[in-house]
Amino acid sequence: MKMDRWRASARRILKLSSRPNPAPRFTRDHSNPVRYGIVSSGLLHCSGGSCGGIRCYLGHKQSLSDHLQARAFALGASLIQIRCFGSIATKIQRNPKFATINSDDIRYFRDLLGEKNVKQDEDALLAANMDWMRKYKGSSKLLLLPRSTEEVSQILKYCNSRCLGVVPQGGNTGLVGGSVPVFDEVIVNLGSMNKVISFDEVSGILVSEAGCILESLVNFLDNKGFIMPLDLGAKGSCQIGGNVSTNAGGLRLLRYGSLHANVLGLEAVLANGDVLDMLGTLRKDNTGYDLKHLFIGSEGSLGIVTKVSILTPPKLSSVNVAFLACTDYLSCQKLFLEARRKLGEVLSAFEFLDEQAMDLALNHLEGVRNPLPTALHKFYVLIETTGSDEQSDKEKLEAFLVHSLEGGLISDGVVAQDIQQASSVWNIREGLPEALMKAGAVYKYDLSIPVEKIYDIVEEMRNKLGHSARVVAYGHLGDGNLHLNISCPQYDDAVLAQIEPFVYEWTSKNRGSISAEHGLGLMKAEKIFYSKSPAAVQLMASVKNLLDPNHILNPYKVLPQSLSFP
Amino acid sequence: MKMDRWRASARRILKLSSRPNPAPRFTRDHSNPVRYGIVSSGLLHCSGGSCGGIRCYLGHKQSLSDHLQARAFALGASLIQIRCFGSIATKIQRNPKFATINSDDIRYFRDLLGEKNVKQDEDALLAANMDWMRKYKGSSKLLLLPRSTEEVSQILKYCNSRCLGVVPQGGNTGLVGGSVPVFDEVIVNLGSMNKVISFDEVSGILVSEAGCILESLVNFLDNKGFIMPLDLGAKGSCQIGGNVSTNAGGLRLLRYGSLHANVLGLEAVLANGDVLDMLGTLRKDNTGYDLKHLFIGSEGSLGIVTKVSILTPPKLSSVNVAFLACTDYLSCQKLFLEARRKLGEVLSAFEFLDEQAMDLALNHLEGVRNPLPTALHKFYVLIETTGSDEQSDKEKLEAFLVHSLEGGLISDGVVAQDIQQASSVWNIREGLPEALMKAGAVYKYDLSIPVEKIYDIVEEMRNKLGHSARVVAYGHLGDGNLHLNISCPQYDDAVLAQIEPFVYEWTSKNRGSISAEHGLGLMKAEKIFYSKSPAAVQLMASVKNLLDPNHILNPYKVLPQSLSFP
Repeated sequence: MKMDRWRASARRILKLSSRPNPAPRFTRDHSNPVRYGIVSSGLLHCSGGSCGGIRCYLGHKQSLSDHLQARAFALGASLIQIRCFGSIATKIQRNPKFATINSDDIRYFRDLLGEKNVKQDEDALLAANMDWMRKYKGSSKLLLLPRSTEEVSQILKYCNSRCLGVVPQGGNTGLVGGSVPVFDEVIVNLGSMNKVISFDEVSGILVSEAGCILESLVNFLDNKGFIMPLDLGAKGSCQIGGNVSTNAGGLRLLRYGSLHANVLGLEAVLANGDVLDMLGTLRKDNTGYDLKHLFIGSEGSLGIVTKVSILTPPKLSSVNVAFLACTDYLSCQKLFLEARRKLGEVLSAFEFLDEQAMDLALNHLEGVRNPLPTALHKFYVLIETTGSDEQSDKEKLEAFLVHSLEGGLISDGVVAQDIQQASSVWNIREGLPEALMKAGAVYKYDLSIPVEKIYDIVEEMRNKLGHSARVVAYGHLGDGNLHLNISCPQYDDAVLAQIEPFVYEWTSKNRGSISAEHGLGLMKAEKIFYSKSPAAVQLMASVKNLLDPNHILNPYKVLPQSLSFP
Repeated sequence: MKMDRWRASARRILKLSSRPNPAPRFTRDHSNPVRYGIVSSGLLHCSGGSCGGIRCYLGHKQSLSDHLQARAFALGASLIQIRCFGSIATKIQRNPKFATINSDDIRYFRDLLGEKNVKQDEDALLAANMDWMRKYKGSSKLLLLPRSTEEVSQILKYCNSRCLGVVPQGGNTGLVGGSVPVFDEVIVNLGSMNKVISFDEVSGILVSEAGCILESLVNFLDNKGFIMPLDLGAKGSCQIGGNVSTNAGGLRLLRYGSLHANVLGLEAVLANGDVLDMLGTLRKDNTGYDLKHLFIGSEGSLGIVTKVSILTPPKLSSVNVAFLACTDYLSCQKLFLEARRKLGEVLSAFEFLDEQAMDLALNHLEGVRNPLPTALHKFYVLIETTGSDEQSDKEKLEAFLVHSLEGGLISDGVVAQDIQQASSVWNIREGLPEALMKAGAVYKYDLSIPVEKIYDIVEEMRNKLGHSARVVAYGHLGDGNLHLNISCPQYDDAVLAQIEPFVYEWTSKNRGSISAEHGLGLMKAEKIFYSKSPAAVQLMASVKNLLDPNHILNPYKVLPQSLSFP
């Protein structure tokens, strides 16, 4: 009976696809990745044009026209509403120790890099000063485009001697203001260092320059039968050096682990220009302290990553996607436990969304249809498997699903039968940020919380806010990573005051992290104590002092001001 | 035809087991783990009894009696030959800045820890001063057994104020002299801090004190349906804090990655007694610098790890082992590539041994029989798969084997049909250190080398040494980790001069590591420049100075003397 119900559900999804389904299998479609460009138009509409310091743009509700695809908005829309992620940026004073760029400096950099790699024109600076969310905007007068480690070294040596602040920049796709200047820091963009240096097809070890765009590495590896161990929506713009510097998470972390697990080596240039060659290509190397980890996730504040060596997994042929309904969060949690055990080695994603998230997706995303249309369920789970054997992977997934249905962990579900169906299911999950933007104002939080407590904060927040706002939850349940969103008609300080500092205090009390995968950047530098002990933060400051005594690298970011300029 | 040959081979292994094979499947037997104890007898026979500094014991060939199981020898044998791993230990002078223990110190520690946790008796000190290989021996007069982080903190605060050198000690199973004193340093053994603090069955995150013996954690998790992400021969004695401090590798690294991938958090006590709480239990946490990595693999020289949080994988039900023959190293390498691709997510071990290694095993290990007896092959590969579905895993392995046989990558092979057969196959690989010990003198090197070059150094070494010694190679091919052994009738400085520094120079030239999984300890502290750049080593020394300005923690280890006491 339940089997039938399951199979009836499984057939339902066939309707999602207008074409017949000749191939029962699929591989996930990465052929049309989301591209995030550096915003170069519309900026003045949003920012008001003034500069000289960091601003937090608190806009007012303005509906996006229905035809506007939020994923594309960053590329060209000129009247897009700028929203704040919740926290109002800290008021910061420019560090008076920093020098100001003069004509001698420009002459030095032109001699070093060549004229075309020293950018001072308004367009280039406009794009490089503003983050892609248009939330943070600096006022740098100088963008440098080095083409080699030696050039990066010379730049930093010079800036250190002159006490010029420096912002290392990759694809500028960060969400916390880490990749743009706060004041007039020199921007050093690594985009011209974009060569693959070597690839070992036996071990799957890739060595590349830091400026390689993630997607170009994905394409390079695809031809060789390998994949990158990380996958991000921003892969069309983000650079591997930026990924490493921010310890980017993404969709494959559940399966392949973080970049601390996959980066085998790197080369970094210190603030004084010293080049640190840690570009090992070995899975095992216990010779001394493993210093590369200091540069993974330190957001460019300890050195500029110039080359990366990374372990890449082989591309596997069989991918399956199931979209399931659960009646309560405990069932989602138990289902995750079962999935880890029963799907074990083939499990590659375990995402969840709640009823409010699904409702938003159905109401605000074009072309999205409910794969389980008979009722709106309390929770939905997206499970992806990736393996090497189509038949056995399929059987494994189906056995797991039948078992879970019979055990009452899931109340309904469908399995995608081809690539279009898989994409349409993924689109629901991946379209949620867009749906939230369309729905109005949104306060966004990226939290790590022990899996069993993830939904507690959602319910507490809901109780706290009552009817004044809508609390929407989704995220990488398999990684314990909740994206908590508070959606309301317009930004409202009274609502914000109910959210913060409660959300940080709750997360801290439950040993969570206030930044799961986005980093601290400028946005949360002052909030670090919610997740780290004073002794640990003090040691971070000591490490910063050791590696960058003049604090020229990515100033005002990551660490609190009180420790940054002691 | 080839299929038949394969199947004929597959049947052959049935003969290895004297009993019928009712169960066609098995899980690998961990019920009789190798236990390495701290040597407490026989010591004086070997060392000559003198102390006051580090010694390298260069014994002479002495055959072990046939009934002596080398795996057990460390526990009780009293006349065991002591061998050197190749390098003659550097002559070291005691750091004159260190104080010497006096009666006030003893009184302080007794008041702090209680009399029974302050050991000064000869037996206890004998065991704690000597490593289990009996190669390194210190002359400490004091062994402390703290029971809490607070006690560790008070010990270090006191030692730092008095400038007393300290050796952090776990199970004392290291191979490079890292866990025993060099002179009269205070030994701080974490063995009394052996409680499991928490286990989250949803996420599989285990938090324990540092003194938990690895095997006790394995047993704890087994009841919950999880495994430790690392497995070592020494698991019956080694402690998780020591594993983390040395970044222990072992048998599961190919599948689950290193401890940098699996340790989610830790608590460490710094040299000045400050307790650093980094005991996160989250898969994702991008809040500031990830300082825990400094303590993973720094061999206790930056702080004493007191608690560990670790991600544990679910225990999977199906394990398969195949033992295969290849005609040349290139085939082994190609087979590895195929295995990564075809077995992908279930591959859990890929070990290799050469003809000389197999010959040694057959001649020196009791009860070992050749699973492929028709001929001696040039190379052998052991492949293990671990998955969640017996039937599909088996089919996947068989399809891979048939394909590899047809493609000429393997010339023969067998698949174990039950747990006894699997164990007997593993015994060949795991018995090689024992076989080498029985065969005579042996110079041992633990190298990481890019997979495609692993066997080049073996052949070069063989050409170089000619008939003067036997070059034996085996190791974790999947991790690029070669165990290179030069076996000769007796230790011979002329042979050693042909091996070193060639072996280090060759490894360095090929961007390998002179210590893949064993660490540097005392043995290779001076050799760090073969694997790390001067700038990187200098930064390590700066980090050491920052965290332990008096250099009281594990002195004389990891970093060269010239940088340790600047």
